[in-house]
Amino acid sequence: MSELSVNHLLGIKYLKKEDIDLIFKTADHFKEVINRPIKKVPSLRDITIANLFFENSTRTRLSFELAEKRLSADVINFSAASSSVKKGETLIDTVNNILAMKVDMVVMRHPNPGAGIFLSKHVDASIINAGDGTHEHPTQALLDSYSIREKLGEVKGKKVLIVGDIKHSRVALSNIFALKMQGAEVKVCGPKTLIPKYIESLGVSVETNLVKALEWCDVANMLRVQNERMEISYFPTTREYTQQFGLNKQILDSLNKQIVVMHPGPINRGVEITSDVADSKQAIILDQVQNGVAVRMAVIYLLASKINR
Amino acid sequence: MSELSVNHLLGIKYLKKEDIDLIFKTADHFKEVINRPIKKVPSLRDITIANLFFENSTRTRLSFELAEKRLSADVINFSAASSSVKKGETLIDTVNNILAMKVDMVVMRHPNPGAGIFLSKHVDASIINAGDGTHEHPTQALLDSYSIREKLGEVKGKKVLIVGDIKHSRVALSNIFALKMQGAEVKVCGPKTLIPKYIESLGVSVETNLVKALEWCDVANMLRVQNERMEISYFPTTREYTQQFGLNKQILDSLNKQIVVMHPGPINRGVEITSDVADSKQAIILDQVQNGVAVRMAVIYLLASKINR
Amino acid sequence: MSELSVNHLLGIKYLKKEDIDLIFKTADHFKEVINRPIKKVPSLRDITIANLFFENSTRTRLSFELAEKRLSADVINFSAASSSVKKGETLIDTVNNILAMKVDMVVMRHPNPGAGIFLSKHVDASIINAGDGTHEHPTQALLDSYSIREKLGEVKGKKVLIVGDIKHSRVALSNIFALKMQGAEVKVCGPKTLIPKYIESLGVSVETNLVKALEWCDVANMLRVQNERMEISYFPTTREYTQQFGLNKQILDSLNKQIVVMHPGPINRGVEITSDVADSKQAIILDQVQNGVAVRMAVIYLLASKINR
Repeated sequence: MSELSVNHLLGIKYLKKEDIDLIFKTADHFKEVINRPIKKVPSLRDITIANLFFENSTRTRLSFELAEKRLSADVINFSAASSSVKKGETLIDTVNNILAMKVDMVVMRHPNPGAGIFLSKHVDASIINAGDGTHEHPTQALLDSYSIREKLGEVKGKKVLIVGDIKHSRVALSNIFALKMQGAEVKVCGPKTLIPKYIESLGVSVETNLVKALEWCDVANMLRVQNERMEISYFPTTREYTQQFGLNKQILDSLNKQIVVMHPGPINRGVEITSDVADSKQAIILDQVQNGVAVRMAVIYLLASKINR
Repeated sequence: MSELSVNHLLGIKYLKKEDIDLIFKTADHFKEVINRPIKKVPSLRDITIANLFFENSTRTRLSFELAEKRLSADVINFSAASSSVKKGETLIDTVNNILAMKVDMVVMRHPNPGAGIFLSKHVDASIINAGDGTHEHPTQALLDSYSIREKLGEVKGKKVLIVGDIKHSRVALSNIFALKMQGAEVKVCGPKTLIPKYIESLGVSVETNLVKALEWCDVANMLRVQNERMEISYFPTTREYTQQFGLNKQILDSLNKQIVVMHPGPINRGVEITSDVADSKQAIILDQVQNGVAVRMAVIYLLASKINR
Repeated sequence: MSELSVNHLLGIKYLKKEDIDLIFKTADHFKEVINRPIKKVPSLRDITIANLFFENSTRTRLSFELAEKRLSADVINFSAASSSVKKGETLIDTVNNILAMKVDMVVMRHPNPGAGIFLSKHVDASIINAGDGTHEHPTQALLDSYSIREKLGEVKGKKVLIVGDIKHSRVALSNIFALKMQGAEVKVCGPKTLIPKYIESLGVSVETNLVKALEWCDVANMLRVQNERMEISYFPTTREYTQQFGLNKQILDSLNKQIVVMHPGPINRGVEITSDVADSKQAIILDQVQNGVAVRMAVIYLLASKINR
């Protein structure tokens, strides 16, 4: 396969296994590029990309922006706070206006699940979903799988544990789709109230005891605790969460194997993982960040090659 | 004529007819450029442009920023919210400081009428007015006329109707100056309280019945309703405005000719025009947006060639 | 000396005299560059710089951004308002994440004294302190000394007066270190409550009478009055401050020599200096701003050449 089967990256669930393989192969190349002294390639001199962030997200926005600039694309940034959206304009009007200025690709974060899908049906540009509510965050799942593949050779057959608020996490959902598609085994762990009932229909097992779950896995992806959400009490308190689902060095060292620890960031040190775990050799958290730029370069590059011009 | 008669673009009323012709001829070239795969020209590699926005305006700022980047100028952005202006610094000090950093051109939006004119007398840089209070918004009027010329062959002799709050609209005023200068006939339509008394002295006729006005025109430019302003009650309510001055498909189809519908955006769908009108083939709203980039490239390019260096 | 003795610019007090000489010699070159029609050099095409501003500062940020762009570096901007810092992430995590994206240099403004020093010990990138609380603002002091050298030939032996709130001013402290290191005589003047007790241990003399202090000096650097601070009453009122420590034309003309007047900006016209002083030929305030870009280009360029790649 030499091109993606899709024209947009709206969610992992719209991809084929071959798409993921192609993205990873392309990302291997760009990972080399960003580790050279000159971290730029002139590939996309002819592309203008708009980053539309209707929700704050420093790290995702910076990662996309760096990916775009290192591909030599022209970049414009747009955040909801300073936009006509406040003047009551519709999303389609906002995006159509931006596209009329001859923008080729839109990277969008939006609080509404499905916002990117809706948009892709109504506008004529390539859309990359950078997180749409509780729905999907496909580039995060791609960089997570890419990081597992880098660390363990392949994703297939690996046992991956996702710990946290599975119910409201677009990171969890996109990861589940990506991991299953690549042939990994997936287990989730977290407070019962934060695990959706449909989870087993996705081929995912559930374990509410953290130590047992960790004993099982090769990789543990420790989701960020959304304090905002905890407060509205799906689960008693952050402190209780930490006691039952927080990963510390003592637990990590007590396991009968060296598991890989992942975190999508930003870390609440001392909540979902302790500092000694976050900074340990088993953690690949900063590799995930670096791979994020390479994977996003790959996605943008591959989608750009499908734009009709 | 091979260069502009002015060193700044402060308002349409300071231009000559020949300036407009030159801008349009230059914009024709840049419109081709932005429709090529590579939408950039290296023309202004030696120019640094500061976009100073003392009022929010996503679409105008993005349009200028894209125009600047496609001319290969260096661009810095400055918005009032994050500026020293909040620390009580004067406008002249702010701009002089930016210019001392060797900035060649300033694109400025400011709430005070005449802010750009004031500035052009006190600082040594080329100033482009991107909207100054209720005074002028010259690039909007230029892109509007350019779009009429593109659609109807020429502006001369065309009957152009402007509907809305004429009294407080810099878009209306700049359009009137530009259209009259090019030999168009201009009529305005709107609530009596929102039509200034001096309007007829500009050679503009007034019609308060929307259907009669539409029957007359070739082009209807439907201004955005500023809800903020309506509330302070120049006119009863938005709903009443829509009933008397809103354009819907039924009215449009009842006319004895196919008029061209324009809107400076952002659209309040269902207020000044309905969605079926905004999305109809008679509307050239997205052409206006695209032409905005080309016209702004032309203005910047022509002013840059007059900078003494 | 052909390279700096340091890998970071954390404060003037960590520099040697030879470092300052090298920075100024390099800035001489870049000052020529920014006064050419083409104000850019391709020196740092291989460098990515992140500007992290945890406090607002339009002029410093713009000056750094222009310096970086004119060196052809890739630039990403990050401000606290839109950052994960609000989500409770630690400074080290924030910066490590940015660095994992292959950023080579960090320009940081932070409200905490020593934030840059702390960071330089924990992350692997070159750090430039763009102001850390009441501690240091080294590039401001360098551009101030560079401007004195430009105006008076050299800094050595010159009598420099600093007027204002010495106690809370990072500009004052960095200037004192830089000026003393270069062999200038330094005197401070201001309300007693705003002059720290340790000041004389730095080899600086104190004079509370403004006219006497001005009679002594070759250069007067008039610090900005921080109204916010005045209100919490280290000193009665802004009006009383102006009466005792404000510089007006009458005082300036009454001196028996032509002193040079400096101000780090933004100016409170009519408070620390009157408009006729700020705009007089003796003031070099806009030269300071222009020199700021050249000096920052020099600092970035010299630090970049020390990055191991």
